[in-house]
Amino acid sequence: MAEEAAVRAQAETVRRLKQDKADPDEIAKEVAKLLDLKAQLGADEGKHKFVLKTPKGTRDFGPKEMAIRERAFKAIVSCFKRHGAEVIDTPVFELKETLTGKYGEDSKLIYDLKDQGGELLSLRYDLTVPFARYLAMNKITNMKRYHIAKVYRRDNPAMTRGRYREFYQCDFDIAGQFDPMIPDAECLKIVHEILSDLQLGDFVIKVNDRRILDGMFAVCGVPDSKFRTICSSVDKLDKVPWEEVRSEMVGEKGLSPEAADRIGDYVQLHGGLELIERLLQDPKLSQNKLAKEGLGDMKLLFEYLTLFGITGKISFDLSLARGLDYYTGVIFEAVLLQQENEHVEEPVSVGSVAGGGRYDGLVGMFDPKGRKVPCVGVSIGIERIFSILEQRLEASEEKIRTTETQVLVASAQKKLLEERLKLISELWDAGIKAEMLYKKNPKLLNQLQYCEDTGIPLVAIVGEQELKDGVVKLRIVATREEVNVPRESLVEEIRIRTSQC
Amino acid sequence: MAEEAAVRAQAETVRRLKQDKADPDEIAKEVAKLLDLKAQLGADEGKHKFVLKTPKGTRDFGPKEMAIRERAFKAIVSCFKRHGAEVIDTPVFELKETLTGKYGEDSKLIYDLKDQGGELLSLRYDLTVPFARYLAMNKITNMKRYHIAKVYRRDNPAMTRGRYREFYQCDFDIAGQFDPMIPDAECLKIVHEILSDLQLGDFVIKVNDRRILDGMFAVCGVPDSKFRTICSSVDKLDKVPWEEVRSEMVGEKGLSPEAADRIGDYVQLHGGLELIERLLQDPKLSQNKLAKEGLGDMKLLFEYLTLFGITGKISFDLSLARGLDYYTGVIFEAVLLQQENEHVEEPVSVGSVAGGGRYDGLVGMFDPKGRKVPCVGVSIGIERIFSILEQRLEASEEKIRTTETQVLVASAQKKLLEERLKLISELWDAGIKAEMLYKKNPKLLNQLQYCEDTGIPLVAIVGEQELKDGVVKLRIVATREEVNVPRESLVEEIRIRTSQC
Repeated sequence: MAEEAAVRAQAETVRRLKQDKADPDEIAKEVAKLLDLKAQLGADEGKHKFVLKTPKGTRDFGPKEMAIRERAFKAIVSCFKRHGAEVIDTPVFELKETLTGKYGEDSKLIYDLKDQGGELLSLRYDLTVPFARYLAMNKITNMKRYHIAKVYRRDNPAMTRGRYREFYQCDFDIAGQFDPMIPDAECLKIVHEILSDLQLGDFVIKVNDRRILDGMFAVCGVPDSKFRTICSSVDKLDKVPWEEVRSEMVGEKGLSPEAADRIGDYVQLHGGLELIERLLQDPKLSQNKLAKEGLGDMKLLFEYLTLFGITGKISFDLSLARGLDYYTGVIFEAVLLQQENEHVEEPVSVGSVAGGGRYDGLVGMFDPKGRKVPCVGVSIGIERIFSILEQRLEASEEKIRTTETQVLVASAQKKLLEERLKLISELWDAGIKAEMLYKKNPKLLNQLQYCEDTGIPLVAIVGEQELKDGVVKLRIVATREEVNVPRESLVEEIRIRTSQC
Repeated sequence: MAEEAAVRAQAETVRRLKQDKADPDEIAKEVAKLLDLKAQLGADEGKHKFVLKTPKGTRDFGPKEMAIRERAFKAIVSCFKRHGAEVIDTPVFELKETLTGKYGEDSKLIYDLKDQGGELLSLRYDLTVPFARYLAMNKITNMKRYHIAKVYRRDNPAMTRGRYREFYQCDFDIAGQFDPMIPDAECLKIVHEILSDLQLGDFVIKVNDRRILDGMFAVCGVPDSKFRTICSSVDKLDKVPWEEVRSEMVGEKGLSPEAADRIGDYVQLHGGLELIERLLQDPKLSQNKLAKEGLGDMKLLFEYLTLFGITGKISFDLSLARGLDYYTGVIFEAVLLQQENEHVEEPVSVGSVAGGGRYDGLVGMFDPKGRKVPCVGVSIGIERIFSILEQRLEASEEKIRTTETQVLVASAQKKLLEERLKLISELWDAGIKAEMLYKKNPKLLNQLQYCEDTGIPLVAIVGEQELKDGVVKLRIVATREEVNVPRESLVEEIRIRTSQC
C-alpha cells in the first residue's frame, strides 16, 4: 500500500511541475523517480494488493460475446470473399520507424514497447500502414486483400465514451494502378453490402476527396503550411459544432477569421450529383486544379455508384476530412443514423462504423526507390457494431448457444464410468460432438439438467440392461422421448437427429 | 547513418562491460547512454536509411500461408468443439503484475510496454495465465474453453532455430473440481486426435507428474529450495545430453554430485503401466507421499487412456519436466518423431508440438481470498505444424487457391464497363463471388489469363449481341466450353456449376 501511495504522490508532483511549465530538466528528474517507484511496485510481487482487471480500455470476450463477434465477422468475411479478396496477417507490432510520420496529430496515441535491448517497436495503430509496408517489402504492385485484426490506440479516455484502446478492424484494400474510381466505387459498395447485411438500421456513407479539401483550403486563403492542421480541425465537425472548430482554427491555429468563415460556407454543403455539378461551376473552386480534379473524379464515382444502385445512402459532404495524414484522394465514412422510433425529427448520426479512402503515396514511403503503388481501402470498425448486435440479442428472446455439442453421454446407474468413457471415445472418433460429466457416478437428473442448461439436444444413456442388449438409450431432450438404438447405428442416428438442429 | 554507427558502438561498449563483469553503476550509465542514442535515432525520422522488415522473430502471413494456417486451425477448432468447448478471447496485453511470478526462469522473456503514463503493461506470454485471471475475475469455477491467439516471448535467438517471438497457441482447458484424471485423460485424447487428424507422421506423447518429480528430487536429496531450479535443468534434457545437464546442476546450481547421479538414474526411465507399477514398489519413491500420489494418479490415467485406445502413443517419461512454475500435477508434451524413410535406426524426436498439464493453484493466485479452481489444459504449438504442412504442400502437386471467386465478369468488346458494373452488382447482391478487372477496356485474352492464374472456374462475358438477346455468355475455363445463359437464370447456373468445385 505504502508503495502505491508513493507512486501516486510522485505522479502528482510530476503533474504539477508540468502544469507549472517547470524547468524540463527538473521534470525529467522527477519523471525518472516516478518510473523507478513504479518499477519497484511492479517487481514487489505479491506484497501489495493485487488489482484483478484487464488493462484500461481493453476487455475480455466471454463465450456469448464471442458468438456475437463470430456472427459479425462471418458477414464481413463473406462479403470480402464475395469481392475476391485474399487474406493476409502481419505482426501485432512493427518497427517504431515504420509507423513514424503516418498518422499526423494522432501519432501521440501509438503504444511503444519498452526498450529491452534490440529494436524499437510499437503496436500497430491500424492495418493500413502494415499493409503498405507488406506491399513494399514484397514488391507487390497489385493485390486485393482483407485483414481482420486488433489495433491499438492510447486514446484519451475523456474523449472516448465507450471506445476501446484495443479493438478490431476489418480492412479491405485494393492496391494497383487501375482506371479511375472503379476500385473506389467497389469499396463503397462493400460498405453498403455489409451494413445492409448486418441490419444495423439506417445509415449514410459520407464521401469527400482530399484534393477537394486542399483546393477549398487554397481558395479560402489557408497557407499551404496549415493545410494538415486545419484539416484536423475540420475532422472534428462530426463531434463538435462549427463555432468551436472555428475558434480552434482562429485561436489555436492562427488562421485569419476571414479564411475560417470562407471554410465555414463550404463545409456546410452536402448532397449528390447536383452539388458536384454546382461546385464544378463554382467561380473560385473551379479555378483550382486540385479541386477540379477531385470534383471530376467525384462525378465519375457517383456515376458508378448509380450503376450499383446505392446512391440513396451516399452523401457528398464537404465537412468530411478524416485525420490521418496518408489519404490523397477519395475519403469516406459510414455513420449509423438514429432510429425513427426514438421520436427525433431528423435522423441524427450516432457514430462512425466504417471509414477509408485512397492513399496513393503510402507504399512509396516504404519503397527504397519511392515507387508508388496506388491504393484504396475501407476499414470496418467492429466495436459499435458489436454493441448494437449485443443489445439486439438481449432484447430478443433468442437463447444463444455457446457450444455445438450434439449429445451428452450419460449413465443411469453407478459404476459405469468406464462404459461412458468407451462410448464417448467411439463418438469422438466418429466425429460426433459429445460431452460427459467428469464424475465417477453422476446422478441422471444432474446429467439431464446439464443438457437443459447448455442446450444439448440428445442424451445417450448407458445402463446395465442396455449394455447386455447391445443398445444405447437415446433421449431427445426437447420432447423427453426415449428410443433404444443398436450401438452400431448410434452414430448415424445422432447425425440424422441433429442435422435439423 | 552516423547515428546508427554511434548506437552500434555504444552497444558494443555495453556488451564488453557486461562481459567483463564491470561495476554495475558504470554499466547502468552506459546503458542509459545507449537508450538515449537509440531514442534519438527513433525520433530522427526519415533522415536515416529506412529498414524494410518485420521485427525480429516475427513474420507476415501471405495469402498462401494463410490458406495453410486456416486448414490447421480448422482441424484444431473442430476437435475442440467436438469436445464441447466454449471459446473466449482476452487482450493481447495484461497488467504487468498479472504475469509476475508465474513463469519461473522464463520471466525474463516477457515483453514489457513502455511506460507512457498509466498502467504498467506486458504482452501475454501464454494463454494460460490470462485464462486463470479471467476465471478469477469473473468468479467462474467451472468451464471448458478454447482460445486461439498469438503469444509473445523474447526468446534468445541463439537458442531458437526457427522459433518465433510472436506465435500462435491453440489452448484447450478444463477448469473445475472433478473426479481425478477424467479431464486430464480428455486433454491427452485431444492431442492424440489433432495430431492424427493433421497426419503429421508418427508422434509420442510424453507424460509425467510434478508430484513424481518433486518426490524424486526429495528422495534423491535435493534441498526443497532447489526443486524449481533443478526442475528447470531437467527440462533441458530434450535438447542437451545428460552430462551437460548434470554439470549445470552440480556446477551452476550447487547440487551434490551424488544427488545429481541419483536423479540421473531416474530420468532415463520411460515406459507404460509396468513402469508405474515398478515405481510404486520402488523402496525409496514409494515412501514419499507426493510421489506415491502422483504414481497412483498416473496409473488411473493410463487406465482411462486404455479405454480411449491411445496408450500406444503415450510414454510415461521421468525426464519430462516442463519449465513453467504453475504446474502442480500431470504434465505432458507431444513430440513428432523423425520419419522412418530418413534411414535412422530409432525414431528421433524432432520437436515438441503440444504441451500442457495440471495447474491447480494458478486461479487461486488471482482470487482475493485465494479460492482455488483446479485446472488442466493443453496448448497446441502451431508453428512447427505450419512448417510441416507448408513443406508437404510444396512437395505435392496441389495448387492452392487463395480466393474463392466463382466467376469473372468480362467483356469481349470495348465500351462495356457500365454493363460489367451492372452485371457484377447483380451477382454480388445475389451472393455470387465475382470479380472484374479494374480497367475500362480490358482485352478478353487478359481477362481469361487472369482466370487461369487465379483459378476462377467461370467467366460471364457480356457483349453487344448478348445484351440485345438478353443473355450472358458463360465460359467454363477448364473446358473452354461456352454457353449462352438467359440473364435471369445466370445466378442459378453459376451456383449449379460451382457447387462441385
